[in-house]
Amino acid sequence: MNDLISKPEKGKNNNIVWHHATITRQQREKQNGHRSKVLWFTGLPSSGKSTITHAVEERLHQMGCHTFVFDGDNVRHGLCSDLGFSREERKENIRRIGEMVKLFIDAGIIALTAFVSPFRADRERVRNIVGEKDFIEIYCKCSVEVCEKRDPKGHYKKARGGEIKEFTGISSPYEEPLSPDLVLDTACLSVEDNVGEIMRLLIERGIIQKGIR
Amino acid sequence: MNDLISKPEKGKNNNIVWHHATITRQQREKQNGHRSKVLWFTGLPSSGKSTITHAVEERLHQMGCHTFVFDGDNVRHGLCSDLGFSREERKENIRRIGEMVKLFIDAGIIALTAFVSPFRADRERVRNIVGEKDFIEIYCKCSVEVCEKRDPKGHYKKARGGEIKEFTGISSPYEEPLSPDLVLDTACLSVEDNVGEIMRLLIERGIIQKGIR
Repeated sequence: MNDLISKPEKGKNNNIVWHHATITRQQREKQNGHRSKVLWFTGLPSSGKSTITHAVEERLHQMGCHTFVFDGDNVRHGLCSDLGFSREERKENIRRIGEMVKLFIDAGIIALTAFVSPFRADRERVRNIVGEKDFIEIYCKCSVEVCEKRDPKGHYKKARGGEIKEFTGISSPYEEPLSPDLVLDTACLSVEDNVGEIMRLLIERGIIQKGIR
Repeated sequence: MNDLISKPEKGKNNNIVWHHATITRQQREKQNGHRSKVLWFTGLPSSGKSTITHAVEERLHQMGCHTFVFDGDNVRHGLCSDLGFSREERKENIRRIGEMVKLFIDAGIIALTAFVSPFRADRERVRNIVGEKDFIEIYCKCSVEVCEKRDPKGHYKKARGGEIKEFTGISSPYEEPLSPDLVLDTACLSVEDNVGEIMRLLIERGIIQKGIR
């Protein structure tokens, strides 16, 4: 339905032909005062993706940026509630997230995602969906040993005990990004320091400006 | 991944326990200066949904509101590109749109949707997904005769000729909303007048304020 539709039969302004006035991404970015992108965090379970993602969002919100975080909680219970955890279903899960994120970018928003997303092929698919220039891959690098020591949900323990099958890092591989936009040392550096790294990157790339409001 | 994660092993600020700083919808609405809702347009093909939707978006954008329009173009080619047009697939299509729209509302955006969405049960499902208070149903009322006369894409013609099966209004039913928030007379009133009706409703309900910027 992106054509013109014929003018109304009666009423005022019958001579006006209405085009679809589609607001563009560029107009939204101008309104918001920043560019829209996806910051795609990837890394082992408990590597700190979710914590850092939310800390970055808080910082950006304080600066007046428009942001949104996607994680298992708001995606797996909603849009992807029909999907299980087989290889095929994980693939479809990531595809849908990619398509949704693309629309958030079109809407002028800085999207942040906190998914393990262990397979290169899946991340490449998202990169292709949203477009190379809009996909910023951030690798939360942390050894399995450190992640396992944290294990806030006890998932590693269950995976060791065989209760969770195909758990990334234990019984399923994690494929490191080959050329991520940023590698965060989430074993050694504080959340604050890692947030600082990300803010520096966003400013360097002209996505945000220092202290906008 | 919504728990705390343990503090980093080394580096500064080891004594800081990081909570997830989740920015709430309320904070986003405050930032934007308007409430977030979905305006769910429904009506026969060529009843004017898409034209009015984009005209409303343009008006809202000019006022400084944050909006996004969903239609067949950006949903059927993306998020729902795996779905066909069987009853079951149409149902899943609408479900996914509902779940996505819910996240846009959480992100503080006024979402506008332009889908025929002919079945009450499907629209009710979306109402349940996004929540009664956030679902504003707008019925673009227009007779089949008038819609068929417009027919900008020639779909009615093809449906009459049997080329398109199960075409709403011709060979598949359209179930009118029983108690929509707004009924627009899209046969007789101009787009401008209908946009005016919608703006009045949004102001009345406190979703936007007159002339915000």
